[in-house]
Amino acid sequence: MVVRSELKNPPKNAAALRIDGKIVDLDSVPPSGAAVEYVTLDSQEGLEILRHSTAHLMAQAILELFPGAQLTIGPPIDSGFYYDIDLDRSFVPEDLKEIEKRMSKLAKRGFPIERDEIDRADALKLFEERGESYKIEMINELPAGETISIYRQGDFVDLCRGPHMSSTAKLKHFKLLSVAGAYWRGDEKNKMLQRIYGTSYPGREDLEKHLKRLEEAKARDHRVLGKQLGLFLVDENAGPGLIYWQPKGNLVRRVVERFWEDEHIKREYQLVTIPHIARDELFKISGHYDFYRENMYVLNIDEQEYVLKPMNCPGHILIYQEETRSYRDLPYRLAEMGTVYRYERSGVLHGMLRVRGFTQDDAHIFCTPEQAEDEVIDVIDLAQFMLETFGYEKFEIELSVHDPENFDKYAGTREDWAASEEALKRALETREIPYKRIEGEAAFYGPKIDIKMLDALGRGWQGPTIQFDFNLPKRFNLRYVGSDGDRHLVVMIHRTVLGSMERFVGGLIEHYAGAFPTWLAPVQAKVMTITDDQIPFGKKVAQNLRDAGHRVESDFRNEKIGKKIREAQLAKIPYMLVIGAREMESGQVALRVRGKGDVGALALEEVMSQIRSDVESRAFSPGEN
Amino acid sequence: MVVRSELKNPPKNAAALRIDGKIVDLDSVPPSGAAVEYVTLDSQEGLEILRHSTAHLMAQAILELFPGAQLTIGPPIDSGFYYDIDLDRSFVPEDLKEIEKRMSKLAKRGFPIERDEIDRADALKLFEERGESYKIEMINELPAGETISIYRQGDFVDLCRGPHMSSTAKLKHFKLLSVAGAYWRGDEKNKMLQRIYGTSYPGREDLEKHLKRLEEAKARDHRVLGKQLGLFLVDENAGPGLIYWQPKGNLVRRVVERFWEDEHIKREYQLVTIPHIARDELFKISGHYDFYRENMYVLNIDEQEYVLKPMNCPGHILIYQEETRSYRDLPYRLAEMGTVYRYERSGVLHGMLRVRGFTQDDAHIFCTPEQAEDEVIDVIDLAQFMLETFGYEKFEIELSVHDPENFDKYAGTREDWAASEEALKRALETREIPYKRIEGEAAFYGPKIDIKMLDALGRGWQGPTIQFDFNLPKRFNLRYVGSDGDRHLVVMIHRTVLGSMERFVGGLIEHYAGAFPTWLAPVQAKVMTITDDQIPFGKKVAQNLRDAGHRVESDFRNEKIGKKIREAQLAKIPYMLVIGAREMESGQVALRVRGKGDVGALALEEVMSQIRSDVESRAFSPGEN
Repeated sequence: MVVRSELKNPPKNAAALRIDGKIVDLDSVPPSGAAVEYVTLDSQEGLEILRHSTAHLMAQAILELFPGAQLTIGPPIDSGFYYDIDLDRSFVPEDLKEIEKRMSKLAKRGFPIERDEIDRADALKLFEERGESYKIEMINELPAGETISIYRQGDFVDLCRGPHMSSTAKLKHFKLLSVAGAYWRGDEKNKMLQRIYGTSYPGREDLEKHLKRLEEAKARDHRVLGKQLGLFLVDENAGPGLIYWQPKGNLVRRVVERFWEDEHIKREYQLVTIPHIARDELFKISGHYDFYRENMYVLNIDEQEYVLKPMNCPGHILIYQEETRSYRDLPYRLAEMGTVYRYERSGVLHGMLRVRGFTQDDAHIFCTPEQAEDEVIDVIDLAQFMLETFGYEKFEIELSVHDPENFDKYAGTREDWAASEEALKRALETREIPYKRIEGEAAFYGPKIDIKMLDALGRGWQGPTIQFDFNLPKRFNLRYVGSDGDRHLVVMIHRTVLGSMERFVGGLIEHYAGAFPTWLAPVQAKVMTITDDQIPFGKKVAQNLRDAGHRVESDFRNEKIGKKIREAQLAKIPYMLVIGAREMESGQVALRVRGKGDVGALALEEVMSQIRSDVESRAFSPGEN
Repeated sequence: MVVRSELKNPPKNAAALRIDGKIVDLDSVPPSGAAVEYVTLDSQEGLEILRHSTAHLMAQAILELFPGAQLTIGPPIDSGFYYDIDLDRSFVPEDLKEIEKRMSKLAKRGFPIERDEIDRADALKLFEERGESYKIEMINELPAGETISIYRQGDFVDLCRGPHMSSTAKLKHFKLLSVAGAYWRGDEKNKMLQRIYGTSYPGREDLEKHLKRLEEAKARDHRVLGKQLGLFLVDENAGPGLIYWQPKGNLVRRVVERFWEDEHIKREYQLVTIPHIARDELFKISGHYDFYRENMYVLNIDEQEYVLKPMNCPGHILIYQEETRSYRDLPYRLAEMGTVYRYERSGVLHGMLRVRGFTQDDAHIFCTPEQAEDEVIDVIDLAQFMLETFGYEKFEIELSVHDPENFDKYAGTREDWAASEEALKRALETREIPYKRIEGEAAFYGPKIDIKMLDALGRGWQGPTIQFDFNLPKRFNLRYVGSDGDRHLVVMIHRTVLGSMERFVGGLIEHYAGAFPTWLAPVQAKVMTITDDQIPFGKKVAQNLRDAGHRVESDFRNEKIGKKIREAQLAKIPYMLVIGAREMESGQVALRVRGKGDVGALALEEVMSQIRSDVESRAFSPGEN
């Protein structure tokens, strides 16, 4: 709580005031008796104000440098800000540097940033004079009676709710990062604008840390590595958002899939395969046709409508329904690496992470209410085991429950919800897993647990979901014969462990920066000769490795060994076996291990035992087991 | 050659005459100097005449028994004949018996079967008087000037080209088999008729052999076994021709797939995965859009046309094209279990054998012309190895080559064709494989080898295809840099080994009559207890088997052991482990082996070693290795 007399002398890191809970400019005068707090730059809210003001600063610089530019909107975002600009030429990287320079200059001049509230007519007149047509469009859309506020710094004026920093002098540590296309109001029918991204921090160190992290993330970008390592491709002409798994990427996928299948079979899941199309009828019964239709692809066969399945559940339900199930047959767990297709706007597609076709590692558990908690525990154990095997060590867990105030929007009874939320909660507690409970965030058909895994850079990736469903059992009338002889509605749980193969492998590429552990590496070992004399021995070595089931490439070209090693390193191959005259003579290989460099001459058997040990232990780094 | 004077006294098994190559009725008078031969009942042509005449006999019986019936067409087919009838009530099995009885009666009366050629007006008048509207429709569609022939036996007349047997007395050994729906002219927009199938043989023994084979085939029907054994289902409401692989069927599929993948990796194929949809553009380049469009499913995304892929080739081509390939990178072999969707009329769909969605075990080999022959040999070796592993021992091989008279309809140069046909031929000769060369049967884009495997009943199943393609490399401009530094068109070979997973597993079900070899069996062993006292020991036994990686079910119900054994036998489980008080005491199990019955008490280790040995050797029958 701020004492009123202190207000003249705010702390150095103050960004704004919070008066009776509402955040306002620092120079606002609180009404007597109001609760007043400082919003400082070390809070998320303070940081957002700093970035929002930096967006204004950027707009001011752009208008000075490019007088024809039209401003649209420029909000703070997760880790910075952007401003969408309409300009009849494309910004190039040099422009960003120029804009940044001008921003520094303007910042140093220390313009006070001042708020003004004006009426609609004045606002329209002001922006008409300035020729800012997007602002006029926005003013015209404001509801009658809404306060219209503008912010000024020097010559610059922007239509803005605020709040803002008190002076441009407070903006010191910022950086413009990139330009991308963005449709006005996000609508592909509108004009394409240019979005300049930037970020801003209160201190130099934080900015530099952020830029370094960005660089690290860029070096791990799965789209760049995917191309460089020959893992996957997207062909815009064949269709955006559709992944073609090249041999090496597909190899990673297949190893993950087999591991997944084997673990599911061990845990008594039953694998199935369903077709990718089904009559609309099936998705009308499931309800997807009504509430999900705009994301579904539709085709016609024999004058009947079919859909490309966006979900695997209705197909698995058909298999459940094929026989009368008794409580003795439950839990009945159907699992499938099921490929689904869902419409996404082309603007949001992103490498393997946001696509139009993807393979879910899907499963549906049909069980009795009494079995639900144990099933949830088993899924958590499976998920944890699998994710840890891939080197994910930290997780963020959310439990989404219903909003009791709005119960009529939910499927299922109050007892269903109470029991299933309790089952999820108890399962997490049994495994002593910390989680965040989010009220009212459950889907209408049931509560769920979402698990995010944190990667090597601490970024979160959507992973396992465990989701109760009270809707589909009712819609399909899914029953089992209980020990009492009656036919009861079955409990249905949807779950994925990896999410989708595309997103998961995309995530792995970034998590490992393309340097896959030996068990996952598309090429586990590369045999390289120093001169042609060693080719016969090299072939024998490669064949021995291959016969032992390892994935091997050879480089017997007439090239310098330094070049061969460099290429193998770029390909991030864990084991490099170099053979020169000396090695051939002693029947050994000179071994280089990824991340360790030259480890000297070894017998091939030793190298093979090392690789085998990597694979069997699923070691994260070669030789680490 | 028949001497003219013999014609009065034809041999007993004569069905017709062949005069100057044309088959005509036995009582035809050859022009002087013509070449004359008997067509006898031991030839395929003779058999067809016998069956065609039996179809007439059936029609005659039907018209007597069901005076309102309308005849349409009644041809001989592969192993019998049918007649399509329009009648306002449904034929039931009892009707077939009645018709058969009447046929025997009519046959015995020995009506001469007589040909008559009449003009169009008389023909129309005749069938109008008889009220046969379908025949009138057919007469009206005959081109002007065409000879119109009718055949009479007793009161019965049919519009027919013939030829026919000389008397109904020659028809002795026939059997009516089934009734099915069939649209008039095969068009779903027309009226649904009733098709009665039957067969006919010159001798009783042949007929009985055929009926026995039919019974055997019926007992092996993959649709019946598929349901009985819980292997797969088709849900007409979710869409005809679309296979849902239930857990047990999917298990067989997965074992086959992994075997297939492993063998391909050993042989240096590279596995890939492509999406199921692509823009029409891709299939316009490939040409499929023009000549295959009516079989393709089309959908729209963002106002662009997409297709559900009917072929995997264009997708694999995109992967080939991703990099510049040198002759050193070839052969480049891309393989995928690729699911494709193709339209088939609902009338022709048949279980897993004729479907609308199927997974091809597809591969595309990109190579230099010099490498082609070795590649073909390797594919033949792979195919032979895989099919023999599944117990197919006999094959029928066809080499389809081009028709040099019509060269302009083909893609590729004369040199391409000569070289590739020679490569296919030499590959077959190198492996000393007998084959049938079929002139003019090649696809327009290249010659091919088709391999049919013969199953346990001697029936042929379409299996491997090795197909050259001179079309796609040109359309996509698929090149490689040769040792001369120039960019040459690559040689492309399409090939499948199994055909499709659906047809292949459907075929396996019939080949094994559902009794899968241990390595493929969905359930390899079943543990059964005689009383509840043995349940703890039974659980231990089941767990031991499971831990050893075997697929196990338990039956610990409170039921008689005879019932448990019967059910396990019906499920065609190879190993049945029965545990009673005696076994528990001695720590053994009483073993029953499929096809061998009770083999006495054994230590569990012995049973497990037997199962392991079955799996490792891929033995056809349990204990046979």
